[in-house]
Amino acid sequence: MSLNATHDPGRRSWIDSANAPGCDYPIQNLPWGVFSDSDGTRRVGVAIGDLILDVTALEAAGIVEPAPGRRVFGEGFLNPFMALGPAVWSATRAALADLLDARTGDRALPLVAQKGATMHLPIFARSYTDFYASREHATNVGTMFRGADNALPPNWLHMPIGYNGRASTVVVSGTGIRRPLGQLKAADDPVPRLGPSQKLDFELELGAILGTGNAMGAPVTTVQAWEMIFGFVLLNDWSARDVQVWEYQPLGPFQSKAFGTTISPWVVTREALAPFVVAPPERALPLLPYLHETAPHNLDLALEIDLAPQGQGPTTIARTNARHLYYSAAQQIAHHAISGCAMETGDLIGSGTISGPTPDSRGALLELTWNGRDPVTVAGGTRSFLQDGDSVTLRGWCEGAYRLGFGPCEGTILPAPEAP
Amino acid sequence: MSLNATHDPGRRSWIDSANAPGCDYPIQNLPWGVFSDSDGTRRVGVAIGDLILDVTALEAAGIVEPAPGRRVFGEGFLNPFMALGPAVWSATRAALADLLDARTGDRALPLVAQKGATMHLPIFARSYTDFYASREHATNVGTMFRGADNALPPNWLHMPIGYNGRASTVVVSGTGIRRPLGQLKAADDPVPRLGPSQKLDFELELGAILGTGNAMGAPVTTVQAWEMIFGFVLLNDWSARDVQVWEYQPLGPFQSKAFGTTISPWVVTREALAPFVVAPPERALPLLPYLHETAPHNLDLALEIDLAPQGQGPTTIARTNARHLYYSAAQQIAHHAISGCAMETGDLIGSGTISGPTPDSRGALLELTWNGRDPVTVAGGTRSFLQDGDSVTLRGWCEGAYRLGFGPCEGTILPAPEAP
Repeated sequence: MSLNATHDPGRRSWIDSANAPGCDYPIQNLPWGVFSDSDGTRRVGVAIGDLILDVTALEAAGIVEPAPGRRVFGEGFLNPFMALGPAVWSATRAALADLLDARTGDRALPLVAQKGATMHLPIFARSYTDFYASREHATNVGTMFRGADNALPPNWLHMPIGYNGRASTVVVSGTGIRRPLGQLKAADDPVPRLGPSQKLDFELELGAILGTGNAMGAPVTTVQAWEMIFGFVLLNDWSARDVQVWEYQPLGPFQSKAFGTTISPWVVTREALAPFVVAPPERALPLLPYLHETAPHNLDLALEIDLAPQGQGPTTIARTNARHLYYSAAQQIAHHAISGCAMETGDLIGSGTISGPTPDSRGALLELTWNGRDPVTVAGGTRSFLQDGDSVTLRGWCEGAYRLGFGPCEGTILPAPEAP
Repeated sequence: MSLNATHDPGRRSWIDSANAPGCDYPIQNLPWGVFSDSDGTRRVGVAIGDLILDVTALEAAGIVEPAPGRRVFGEGFLNPFMALGPAVWSATRAALADLLDARTGDRALPLVAQKGATMHLPIFARSYTDFYASREHATNVGTMFRGADNALPPNWLHMPIGYNGRASTVVVSGTGIRRPLGQLKAADDPVPRLGPSQKLDFELELGAILGTGNAMGAPVTTVQAWEMIFGFVLLNDWSARDVQVWEYQPLGPFQSKAFGTTISPWVVTREALAPFVVAPPERALPLLPYLHETAPHNLDLALEIDLAPQGQGPTTIARTNARHLYYSAAQQIAHHAISGCAMETGDLIGSGTISGPTPDSRGALLELTWNGRDPVTVAGGTRSFLQDGDSVTLRGWCEGAYRLGFGPCEGTILPAPEAP
């Protein structure tokens, strides 16, 4: 995607908070979300400074009209708008930027304070797929689960490995996550028992949200795949490691990852991220042509993980960057569709845990503590895995001529339910 | 579920074809589907004899009214009706049976011929999960993929093993299935290549359709799980074995099963199947309490597989019965929700391939031909795996004081697309 006026670093908004240094939501960002204020109705908006521009109200007033003759912002999800495709996304983004521009702005726009708004899940998550695209993560987990000699599976350097996740439990930042029950069996236990997971973990990921899809039976190129992406969110793929290790052979993770997946509330558009695209890591082996990229699609996106025990302040326990991912979202989607699998509006594609090359850049407690052996220090104690009341917050931002912030992706662990 | 007047074997309809011996759709069946005729509008109906009773029209006329004050049959899917729950399903079934009963029937009902109608996907498949519940199938496949010593994974006798499938490619019987492209690598190939699958297979399964769900974080008992099931369909989980064997470690099947899943058009209700519930196979090991059943939930459902090469007649290549399944749908759903995973209206739960104890009762070519070693004989030749133009039809029925037929579940293989 070529740069245009919406990427102009000199552009300023008539909303002062959007021009403040370090603001996550300058006029160059304009991420999309779904919010409600006191009247409770879900509305679509874009973040600008410390405010939200109510796009549902703009459409009702005829100020923006992405689909002439019908409303696409009235359903409380971005899906109807996303289905209109990249040309409409881009034109609408340009129109909103013009409305907010210091030179051309209309100061009588429907704006609400972010502070008083409740954020909701921005999309109907049609399907959720989770990949495994960090070589460092795959190597670390493989070493722990299968030994150093079998760490990286033989297929890993040839294809983006992924699995279908559970869309029904994709929730927005701020939703409590109940500790899961599951079958637990230590290596020397004769039989499993049912109990609350004792190895509850997070996974730091980036989520790509598909705006458009492909027909069943019709694979796509990486170029087409990239154009299907509406935007990105931060994603926490909560994981129960003790459940996982007992259940995952031979058909993959199931209940160990089915109880909750948290995403950040603001969808940062692919178009906004265009200035922060960077080359991927060097290829260890040649890829098959359907995975070739004619332009890079990795993102230079700084990431960090905060952990706050109940009643304690947060400690940043890891810092990394999405640029480390071995496979881009475009490659993942091209692989996802190679069989003829239909991708659809609202599909959520998790990158897989993002781990960097250093021990403090790992994206899960499993790796940070090496399966509990080396606990991390947090306010008031240490953690091998998550305890009830722990709050985990993922943060992410691109920094260049300006800053593009992602909203925080937070979840707090609630106690396990009673067995049924 | 206790038996009631809708199960009365003496009951007859004023529609003669429903009373014919061997009819799949007597008044005791009343399976639900979505159809259109010449005007193209999708409508909800139930099959009766060789006709379809147009329930969308009945609702519009005020003759049935499952949700007073609003329409639930106007959206072209069963989901809004299914979401109303078991008491409404049962009352509506009883009302429809009364309308069709020889003693009380109204002969001025909106009926259309099945012959001239087009059947559509009856549900919006919210999510699709596929299990692996036949001990014989798991043992056969495990022997081929991992050797006889590791055939049945250590967890298999303790939990229903399953994985999340792809909902976007669930299609109705009669939809063509395009041969998938995928990464192929024989054991002695140095690197994989991209190509059309050379080991394309079917899997004979039963699909449970959830009418209602559970809240995230709230597991359910097997009794509750059974009550969440609206009905059952036949299901063909098309599989590319060569893609599968290269991709499935460590995160499970992905593109090898993402290109298509076919279901039969008529949803036979759980209530209609109540007289055909039978005990499961003997347990080899005790199950954890959350998987205990206070009543059996296996189904005595005869199944067969027909294969017809292009331009040739069908050959029945296997016969089996769903009663062989080691885990019931109720146990699968209770396990699916044990982590707090939310189940939802429209979820489709595949049983896993249904194989019986004898070589001619195996539910996939992989097993029937022992990975191609022993081809099966069909009209005009033999088959190790499927060829382009082959048509596979699954059939199923319960037989007792009357017969409950499932609609045929058919798919024909189309040639692979060009590489993207």
